Amino acid sequence: MSRAVQVALIGQKFMGRAHSNAWSQVNHFFDLGLVAERRTVAARDAGEVAAFAAHWGWKQWTTDWHSIANDDAIGLVDIGTPNDVHAEQAIAMLEAGKHVACEKPLAGSLADARAMRDAAKKARKKSKTFVWYNYRRCPAIGLAWKLAREGRLGRVYHVRAHYLQSWGGADTPLLWRFQKKHAGTGAHGDLNAHLVDLARFLVGEEVVEIHGAIERTFVRERVIPGTKKVGKSDVDDCVLFLASFAGGATASFEATRLAHGHQNDNFIELNGEKGSVRFSFEDMNVLWFCDGTQPLETRGWQRIMCTSAGGGHPYAKNWWPDAHVLGYEHGFINMAADILRVLAGDEPELPLPDFEDAYQTQRVLEAALLSARERRAIKLSDVR
Amino acid sequence: MSRAVQVALIGQKFMGRAHSNAWSQVNHFFDLGLVAERRTVAARDAGEVAAFAAHWGWKQWTTDWHSIANDDAIGLVDIGTPNDVHAEQAIAMLEAGKHVACEKPLAGSLADARAMRDAAKKARKKSKTFVWYNYRRCPAIGLAWKLAREGRLGRVYHVRAHYLQSWGGADTPLLWRFQKKHAGTGAHGDLNAHLVDLARFLVGEEVVEIHGAIERTFVRERVIPGTKKVGKSDVDDCVLFLASFAGGATASFEATRLAHGHQNDNFIELNGEKGSVRFSFEDMNVLWFCDGTQPLETRGWQRIMCTSAGGGHPYAKNWWPDAHVLGYEHGFINMAADILRVLAGDEPELPLPDFEDAYQTQRVLEAALLSARERRAIKLSDVR
Amino acid sequence: MSRAVQVALIGQKFMGRAHSNAWSQVNHFFDLGLVAERRTVAARDAGEVAAFAAHWGWKQWTTDWHSIANDDAIGLVDIGTPNDVHAEQAIAMLEAGKHVACEKPLAGSLADARAMRDAAKKARKKSKTFVWYNYRRCPAIGLAWKLAREGRLGRVYHVRAHYLQSWGGADTPLLWRFQKKHAGTGAHGDLNAHLVDLARFLVGEEVVEIHGAIERTFVRERVIPGTKKVGKSDVDDCVLFLASFAGGATASFEATRLAHGHQNDNFIELNGEKGSVRFSFEDMNVLWFCDGTQPLETRGWQRIMCTSAGGGHPYAKNWWPDAHVLGYEHGFINMAADILRVLAGDEPELPLPDFEDAYQTQRVLEAALLSARERRAIKLSDVR
Amino acid sequence: MSRAVQVALIGQKFMGRAHSNAWSQVNHFFDLGLVAERRTVAARDAGEVAAFAAHWGWKQWTTDWHSIANDDAIGLVDIGTPNDVHAEQAIAMLEAGKHVACEKPLAGSLADARAMRDAAKKARKKSKTFVWYNYRRCPAIGLAWKLAREGRLGRVYHVRAHYLQSWGGADTPLLWRFQKKHAGTGAHGDLNAHLVDLARFLVGEEVVEIHGAIERTFVRERVIPGTKKVGKSDVDDCVLFLASFAGGATASFEATRLAHGHQNDNFIELNGEKGSVRFSFEDMNVLWFCDGTQPLETRGWQRIMCTSAGGGHPYAKNWWPDAHVLGYEHGFINMAADILRVLAGDEPELPLPDFEDAYQTQRVLEAALLSARERRAIKLSDVR
Repeated sequence: MSRAVQVALIGQKFMGRAHSNAWSQVNHFFDLGLVAERRTVAARDAGEVAAFAAHWGWKQWTTDWHSIANDDAIGLVDIGTPNDVHAEQAIAMLEAGKHVACEKPLAGSLADARAMRDAAKKARKKSKTFVWYNYRRCPAIGLAWKLAREGRLGRVYHVRAHYLQSWGGADTPLLWRFQKKHAGTGAHGDLNAHLVDLARFLVGEEVVEIHGAIERTFVRERVIPGTKKVGKSDVDDCVLFLASFAGGATASFEATRLAHGHQNDNFIELNGEKGSVRFSFEDMNVLWFCDGTQPLETRGWQRIMCTSAGGGHPYAKNWWPDAHVLGYEHGFINMAADILRVLAGDEPELPLPDFEDAYQTQRVLEAALLSARERRAIKLSDVR
Repeated sequence: MSRAVQVALIGQKFMGRAHSNAWSQVNHFFDLGLVAERRTVAARDAGEVAAFAAHWGWKQWTTDWHSIANDDAIGLVDIGTPNDVHAEQAIAMLEAGKHVACEKPLAGSLADARAMRDAAKKARKKSKTFVWYNYRRCPAIGLAWKLAREGRLGRVYHVRAHYLQSWGGADTPLLWRFQKKHAGTGAHGDLNAHLVDLARFLVGEEVVEIHGAIERTFVRERVIPGTKKVGKSDVDDCVLFLASFAGGATASFEATRLAHGHQNDNFIELNGEKGSVRFSFEDMNVLWFCDGTQPLETRGWQRIMCTSAGGGHPYAKNWWPDAHVLGYEHGFINMAADILRVLAGDEPELPLPDFEDAYQTQRVLEAALLSARERRAIKLSDVR
Repeated sequence: MSRAVQVALIGQKFMGRAHSNAWSQVNHFFDLGLVAERRTVAARDAGEVAAFAAHWGWKQWTTDWHSIANDDAIGLVDIGTPNDVHAEQAIAMLEAGKHVACEKPLAGSLADARAMRDAAKKARKKSKTFVWYNYRRCPAIGLAWKLAREGRLGRVYHVRAHYLQSWGGADTPLLWRFQKKHAGTGAHGDLNAHLVDLARFLVGEEVVEIHGAIERTFVRERVIPGTKKVGKSDVDDCVLFLASFAGGATASFEATRLAHGHQNDNFIELNGEKGSVRFSFEDMNVLWFCDGTQPLETRGWQRIMCTSAGGGHPYAKNWWPDAHVLGYEHGFINMAADILRVLAGDEPELPLPDFEDAYQTQRVLEAALLSARERRAIKLSDVR
Repeated sequence: MSRAVQVALIGQKFMGRAHSNAWSQVNHFFDLGLVAERRTVAARDAGEVAAFAAHWGWKQWTTDWHSIANDDAIGLVDIGTPNDVHAEQAIAMLEAGKHVACEKPLAGSLADARAMRDAAKKARKKSKTFVWYNYRRCPAIGLAWKLAREGRLGRVYHVRAHYLQSWGGADTPLLWRFQKKHAGTGAHGDLNAHLVDLARFLVGEEVVEIHGAIERTFVRERVIPGTKKVGKSDVDDCVLFLASFAGGATASFEATRLAHGHQNDNFIELNGEKGSVRFSFEDMNVLWFCDGTQPLETRGWQRIMCTSAGGGHPYAKNWWPDAHVLGYEHGFINMAADILRVLAGDEPELPLPDFEDAYQTQRVLEAALLSARERRAIKLSDVR
């Protein structure tokens, strides 16, 4: 008989929905030492959160997230709120002795991220921390990670990563995502955060230098929703930067919401001494692999459908037969399974990012902005 | 407040799992006039079905499927058992006044299918019938159907359909799927059934003639699981056939489990006077469309990511943002939603196959086998 | 110092141009035992053929092709005329002791093809024969052939071949290609001929049975060029058929000119016990290979760019560096090189089809038409 | 009757071969006001150049390229030598009143390039200059240029360009290309030169700033050919940089010879306000276009096979029917045609780069290296 962990969720928007689904599905598909029970959901609007709780099967709801800290039954707090409140909420929950799973990016500022990292370090004997970099849980990314760890790529020479979307044109109104006071950054924190996490995860090293960067806003005014007036769109529409990893690999990063033809194109490629891997989320079940040690006669990109339990593909045995493909939400469910494994004292299928890990990603994002603004290369050792 | 329909499920294997998931997820993602409540699951092994019921949240379980007929609370019976028992179960449930949703293909024999069609006709004032041809509910197939109905393809000239898998080589043991007494046919009933359903759905016409067919078994002996002995593998490894639709379109069909490089490649293409569409399940979120009315300068296959609520793609508004892609199980959930819509008196998002419709598919499958065995063309009007 | 062979060409339309280019280019890129010298070109219109000769560097021209037979200097006669005159011209040249390279298909009728085959057999001590099935000379097809011969596919289970174009819609006027009296057949002789040649070449066996076929004309009237009147379009717009090879492999063939999205999509795929290969001419430098003996973890379609001299790809050492790709005309130049090799007593890089070989292809095409018209399966042994 | 221009070629290696082929083929496929006649080829090794002249049909040969200046019959001098001698040769020929077509990049140093630009300016009343940026002549690039000029992309937001090859691993010996004294740079001058030319051509603006760059050598020692000793490999294996165009578009560039899976992947993508285009040389006949003004329902990347005379694709009417694809060498032949058009006083099919134009490309390459070395952003206005 599995033990249960009581989960509380803060936030009930897009991520609230994705996380609720993950907690409701995880024990249907994974045989784990712990069962997740949806105990409490917290959000600001009483009407909305009550309906949300009923819809997703949370036993109780509250408009006061602080109350979660006082509920001794709760073991894990899942934070799906805007970035600027992550620190306050996460630190409070760590101080209350909870495990914390926080949405990405870790925080709205490097100072916040550092405080969270420090709080996690202090609480480490009682609490585990997790950050929802969900794309690490795509089976194709997991296979890429395994191949890299097994030496199938050899020394990594190049990383090429872009996250391209196309919904941010001039017709798009002035949502909160386009306002610096609410969002902090635009495409950078939203999209480059994923790329930096994936690149660090796959390369297995830290970024040591930013060589240059561009931060640019093309659409400077947008219609204020529900009005005919325009307001200032003051976050970046795109950020590009070049970086080096500790082992010498070059890396290029680009995030934008202005790339027609790409809708959710979270793309990463690694070229190593012995082989290459390539992934795009828009065809998320597939990993492309070029094994540079094969004879030239038949060498080339190999399209691997990463859904085979027999092939040992990550998470494949928990889902459907070969090529009965997975979708976006499965990354969250796979991650929920790994969180439960860790809380049960078991090994996760793939390593999970904790606050320390996500803080390293945040340093890279910060250094990139600094490089863009100061028009010079930046050593990561100067950004803490 | 939505009303509820009590659902009973017969069967707890692969399809039992896919259907249970659909019933548990549908009201999380669709705002419908009816809520599905998982009341009873029936299967032969008491231990297994009890565990299954607990796992998937069915309130009660039974080893006697007949008892479902007598439970007046149950409105909808979902049949996920082997083909050879579909008729008995479905007819009993129709006679008991239930709505019935049956796994595909409709039945294990044309006679069974005809009996089911007749029972459905007789019960039509009280009962609705549905057949789980789940691939119709892929958004990309739905978009293809809409384009065809809007005349964007014009008169259809050609259908090209194949369903290719690669798990049935000589190393694969003698599962029940390779034994005629259990499975009836091999790749034909399993895979061609889907192709014929999709082709009929997209063309919007009936098949009128089979021009020729091949039925072939390459691997004639397989190891009996758990033994070192071999037994006879006596179902088809592949069936191919050529057909004509009523309006003159040519069609080619091929199903096999011996095609390395394809794992679940349910592929269909239509070429019409004005345009073409192309779909492969292995990249299920994408529809390829060639609009033959565009200027030649920029004409070509268009890759449409069928996930856009703003683009009006089928089911897109119920799921995630653009290109946050769906997977295999979503076809079942989308179908569950449409079943509930029909039971609530609403329109389904896309037409659903009933027993009459699935009987037409079964006639085509039967005619193809007859053509292969008699080495001649067969008019569909001769197969009833 | 290489010896020379004097070449004569009959025909100066599309194929005259492709062949002239091949003879003018072959010794620029291949180091051969024989140099091709363009001696004589023959065609009906004096003005046109004179200009053609000047343009392409043929030393002399004639409107009387028979005169070529009497020119003792000429060693090789290249026939690029319509199908219905192949037999007369080829047989005359064989009787005059020339080597003959004839455009595909071998002839306009099976009787003609048989007569040509017989003439070639009779002349075999003095004359070599060749048929311009140019697609065999695509390096990617050559690599597929090598892999098949080396056993990398194992026993072949399935062949899937289609040749799809889209220029034959209702807007296309009544060219000679749409008139039976001139063209014999439509898509069948033009396109299926290539498919059958490629399939026989790659499988390495003969077709033994046609299981069924469709021959269909959708566009029955077309505008007569230069007029406002319509005339009868009486050739097939498409022909599909199913076949078996001697070793049991199933094969499907389809040729059409009514498939929007495909312009010159000469496609063939083989699925064998150990692996699969796939080719489409629209991306002609690439062969897709799935090695079914690789571990499932990384198994999948491999995209091989067949341009690597270091990889031993056919003809690669004669052209440009890796992935400096080849085009349509290179098939003809590669074939010219192999013809010259054979005439010099050397081995061709890949086997060349002679009249006997092309006669076997013609038998398959004939049997397919018979099957369509008689609505039954046809044994190849009954078609001679 | 067409007039003739006498052409002289300096250089007989890879580019000598590609150019000789272009001059020998151009009048076979293009109906032009000028015929190119291959008069003289110059190179250092008498034996080699004599054989080369005979092979490619050059009427005379010399080991003294200066003598070309004195041959009044020669109208056009084509320079295919290493970069470090371009300036001396080109300036001498301009001073002798010849037209000059020079291989890319324009020169081995910015100073040389500036001198060439100045010489061209001075000679402009008598002489035309051309630089062999051959990839501009791919029909797909030409179509992209037309779409951009017609406003189909709208304002350009992003350029993403990489030129990836994989032949430069540690196994590759110390060819001259890996020695700074001979090659100047590694991947940068060889590959980024093409990218910068294409980006400037397609965007139609100049680069104004380099935001950061990486220049890196991974393989520092290589075996000296014909020995067992190693020598120093001192050119870049890769150079990456970020740039801005005058109109605000961001651009990323990457050139490397260490990317398994890519052999000649000259890739460029533009994302604009209204649409996107994408090109990779490995599938050179295809342009991908996403028309952002189409309804979302069917919007997506369109695969355009740029071979249609009826579609008005650049150069298509001079070659083969639709999708009878072109290869690498056709870019050179198309360029030769445009050079002859300009010399005949006609319009080229697409604009040709002259020395002034290629000098702008060289400034960008120089600024990128400066940025990498000084670890800061560089304004182009500071690099002359």
